[in-house]
Amino acid sequence: MKISSTVGFIGLGNMGQPIAMNLLKAGNPLRVYNRSRQKTRPLVQQGAVDFDNPAEVVEPGGVVFTMLADDASLRSVVFENTNFIERLAPGGVHVSLSTISPATAREMSAYHDRHGVSFLSAPVIGRPDRAAAGTLFILLAGRPEAKEAILPLLERIGERIFDFGHEPWLSNVAKLAFNFNIAAAIEIMAESFTLAEKNGVPRQRMTELLSETLFSSVIYRGYGDLIARHAYEPAGFRLSLGWKDLQLVLDIADESVTPLPIGSLLRDRLLSAIAKGRGELDWSALALGVSDDAGLRQ
Amino acid sequence: MKISSTVGFIGLGNMGQPIAMNLLKAGNPLRVYNRSRQKTRPLVQQGAVDFDNPAEVVEPGGVVFTMLADDASLRSVVFENTNFIERLAPGGVHVSLSTISPATAREMSAYHDRHGVSFLSAPVIGRPDRAAAGTLFILLAGRPEAKEAILPLLERIGERIFDFGHEPWLSNVAKLAFNFNIAAAIEIMAESFTLAEKNGVPRQRMTELLSETLFSSVIYRGYGDLIARHAYEPAGFRLSLGWKDLQLVLDIADESVTPLPIGSLLRDRLLSAIAKGRGELDWSALALGVSDDAGLRQ
Amino acid sequence: MKISSTVGFIGLGNMGQPIAMNLLKAGNPLRVYNRSRQKTRPLVQQGAVDFDNPAEVVEPGGVVFTMLADDASLRSVVFENTNFIERLAPGGVHVSLSTISPATAREMSAYHDRHGVSFLSAPVIGRPDRAAAGTLFILLAGRPEAKEAILPLLERIGERIFDFGHEPWLSNVAKLAFNFNIAAAIEIMAESFTLAEKNGVPRQRMTELLSETLFSSVIYRGYGDLIARHAYEPAGFRLSLGWKDLQLVLDIADESVTPLPIGSLLRDRLLSAIAKGRGELDWSALALGVSDDAGLRQ
Amino acid sequence: MKISSTVGFIGLGNMGQPIAMNLLKAGNPLRVYNRSRQKTRPLVQQGAVDFDNPAEVVEPGGVVFTMLADDASLRSVVFENTNFIERLAPGGVHVSLSTISPATAREMSAYHDRHGVSFLSAPVIGRPDRAAAGTLFILLAGRPEAKEAILPLLERIGERIFDFGHEPWLSNVAKLAFNFNIAAAIEIMAESFTLAEKNGVPRQRMTELLSETLFSSVIYRGYGDLIARHAYEPAGFRLSLGWKDLQLVLDIADESVTPLPIGSLLRDRLLSAIAKGRGELDWSALALGVSDDAGLRQ
Repeated sequence: MKISSTVGFIGLGNMGQPIAMNLLKAGNPLRVYNRSRQKTRPLVQQGAVDFDNPAEVVEPGGVVFTMLADDASLRSVVFENTNFIERLAPGGVHVSLSTISPATAREMSAYHDRHGVSFLSAPVIGRPDRAAAGTLFILLAGRPEAKEAILPLLERIGERIFDFGHEPWLSNVAKLAFNFNIAAAIEIMAESFTLAEKNGVPRQRMTELLSETLFSSVIYRGYGDLIARHAYEPAGFRLSLGWKDLQLVLDIADESVTPLPIGSLLRDRLLSAIAKGRGELDWSALALGVSDDAGLRQ
Repeated sequence: MKISSTVGFIGLGNMGQPIAMNLLKAGNPLRVYNRSRQKTRPLVQQGAVDFDNPAEVVEPGGVVFTMLADDASLRSVVFENTNFIERLAPGGVHVSLSTISPATAREMSAYHDRHGVSFLSAPVIGRPDRAAAGTLFILLAGRPEAKEAILPLLERIGERIFDFGHEPWLSNVAKLAFNFNIAAAIEIMAESFTLAEKNGVPRQRMTELLSETLFSSVIYRGYGDLIARHAYEPAGFRLSLGWKDLQLVLDIADESVTPLPIGSLLRDRLLSAIAKGRGELDWSALALGVSDDAGLRQ
Repeated sequence: MKISSTVGFIGLGNMGQPIAMNLLKAGNPLRVYNRSRQKTRPLVQQGAVDFDNPAEVVEPGGVVFTMLADDASLRSVVFENTNFIERLAPGGVHVSLSTISPATAREMSAYHDRHGVSFLSAPVIGRPDRAAAGTLFILLAGRPEAKEAILPLLERIGERIFDFGHEPWLSNVAKLAFNFNIAAAIEIMAESFTLAEKNGVPRQRMTELLSETLFSSVIYRGYGDLIARHAYEPAGFRLSLGWKDLQLVLDIADESVTPLPIGSLLRDRLLSAIAKGRGELDWSALALGVSDDAGLRQ
Repeated sequence: MKISSTVGFIGLGNMGQPIAMNLLKAGNPLRVYNRSRQKTRPLVQQGAVDFDNPAEVVEPGGVVFTMLADDASLRSVVFENTNFIERLAPGGVHVSLSTISPATAREMSAYHDRHGVSFLSAPVIGRPDRAAAGTLFILLAGRPEAKEAILPLLERIGERIFDFGHEPWLSNVAKLAFNFNIAAAIEIMAESFTLAEKNGVPRQRMTELLSETLFSSVIYRGYGDLIARHAYEPAGFRLSLGWKDLQLVLDIADESVTPLPIGSLLRDRLLSAIAKGRGELDWSALALGVSDDAGLRQ
């Protein structure tokens, strides 16, 4: 399978911009679109061409990446710009990097199929710093020949690709299940640090103990430090967005009839945080609720 | 502070034996005791001397290590062998490596103080393989001069020492809070793998995704693999012992008036596992309950 | 406010039929519709007139009752039979007896308002036996003059009316919060009976102790007996419908940002019951999960 | 079986005093003891005789009632006054009205048996007003002939007796399982009232809806009103005592290996309330935590 050398990129937020920049730097002519146009500037300065309308970045038989905030934004781009799919067809490839619901991925996949376009779901793991360094982890699923065709592009943006097979939505399932682990790790660190604190062991000592022994990992080191210091601003990932992610997790739990007790606990924890006005803090701020409940912050 | 060169060691189970062996190999004359005597044999073959009674391994002003199953065993050694403390006094050092309650550690500390003996709490992180390799993590707390005196010994058995200050029980608090994190990590992996499985993503793929990206750590790799394969025999750490540990966690939560929702959830999960006859499996077998609840194992 | 003496009634299921019959017996000419027509027969035999289309039961300025399974059914009747609202307008009254979401009630209310029709939300408490006896409890909300106009009709079907004010959806909020209490009472009875059983006290003794002392009430007597005997067939209210109700509860919890820990617990309990194939049993069968977890039913 | 007509009564708190008064008024000569002596005065004024020591109220082959705060108080009376059991033996009857653990009841039973004394466990349901009115509910268990012998006395203090068989501790199991239902009812009312409140329905309306329809019972009426008004002073039953009761519930859950999710939830709720300084309020004040979590009380 051959794809045109020009690449389209829609959605240039915190994550989209560094990813697009890596594609551009690798020598791929880039057509870009972002709702608020000023974000295209750094890319345009490096040679990208920007457009007024998402459908315009698409070329027949080309490849287009989307990195959008949520299901609704992706649906808007694909369904409300009817040219989008027609311009891409036939033989084009749409690589969706966003964290969306498997249900939307399923619907996208069927819709693209009907138009002879390959829909690849490729949500990524990593924050903006990894995106800039080109060391994201990519969860890839969709048609084998399409995956192969875009491999050289993906290698520019990620350090490793995890293949979840032919059905695009499976990489979205995996991404949600992954994020669920992060939220749970935040909660358990918060509980164990609070338990330590109330028994005379400083929170900071606990995060060292975890992250410098058997829990030595990016998540435990990074979030452990934030939670130990109650340092939730500026937000790396806003709590209100974390709640959206968890809702997607609970939705697939419902659809697949899967009880998820820690999911339920996080549901109440995040709702409480939002009710207390903490939605704009980093989502690790759910740890404040643990301290509240222990009478530490009245 | 000077301690006698002969070292006493009480409790030669899966953990105690390799630790004692490392002390012996380092050239320390060793006096050993174990309730069931046959476990002393490998050490005696290497030059250790074994005794009929725990108090006999103790020498005046010497150092004695204990590595016992639980609070009751430690209390029995210290309180029911009245010679124990008298033989050790004055100036001796008792290094308790066991995972015991802070309450017992506090009581031990006061009792040793009254007899002019230093009580050090030094619970360890790591399984028998790390004990054998001398790469345990040691959580140390107690009198500074006693800690300093035994440092050369501890360096033989662990790769790193975390100092929790002067009050011995604080290292026990930290150890319990640490173990709580392990139990919680098992539960969350079980939930997320089950969610993935019911949505079409194999469990094994999820453990790779976690342990080869941002959760790359001993706990997520090791337990992730067991949980993905539902491989709970032979038990590395029996579920019934895990329940004992969690009870110690909940006890300090009660004493310090700390709500612990994941602790509560694990309480019910472990009780259910025991009620279903899974107490002799590895404690990661609590993951079977997650699968039961999702209708996967009827 | 005057309404026509002829009454329309849409939805003749287990609840709708006895309610309609009471209106008919009270001397109100009745126009009825049900999707499966055979259910209209008993009413037609008593003098009601049945129609092929829901809109036909409606008369200008008249009153129409709907007793439908869920939000979707109500929306279908109102929105997909465009004549419905036109025939009712102006001055008509639509009394919705169904348990629907406040969101749908809000939308209905605005839509009826625009057409000069009064929308009253009047969900009822009670099972078919109370419906037949005319002793339902009615949760009423909407425009005062419309409420007053239909009072003589409501008095035929219920023994007591609880007025929740001018905004129709508030009676739906109250109804969902009420049902939530029932589900929770089932869970707590199941837990306490199982605790008693495992400690040597028969389940049946516990239900007597509750329902013949301080918990003497219809819910504790009725469900207590079912749960004590694990008697879940035939279903008085199917578990799968109970799950739908709980989802409506959780939806308003989300919208209003209200943590609901027992709601979360019931969520997992009901999902597990459905995953285990118990969706067609009475919803009190969630108690089977409590016994499963305690190792009583392997 | 015959018992002496003189009755001993130990423990004259809020509950013990009105119960003892009813026995006295029925014409039973009464020997009383209370730790703080002034509480015996009202009874002495009516003809009771008070003593300095609990064992003195006991007569050979007589009957003695105890109504004490907790296990420790009962153990102190029985075990630390060695005359107690000797004075009662042989053929005496000890009726324990307190809410104690089944474990203590079991130990008491064996101890009394060895001395030829009948131990009856007879915890009661009801607050001081019911005690005064002689309308308590009595949960009775123990030897049949002893139960029969004291029946005329019990009929003076309660309106109904529930017989739990020969093994005394079973009535303690039932009592704890009963109290567990009360705590759970408080939590669910709090959650549903808070959900209603956040969606525009006043809390007071919800308690009416429950207690005047299918939940019409003493518990829902009484606690519903307190929770609706957040009226937790003066305490009818202190939250710190509620926590003690719940600990007994969780203890028998542990011993009998019974998961108890609502028990776990109440554990965290009560711990949080105590951590926030609410231990002296009525235990229905756990409802404040529900409001806190919903952001209603910052």
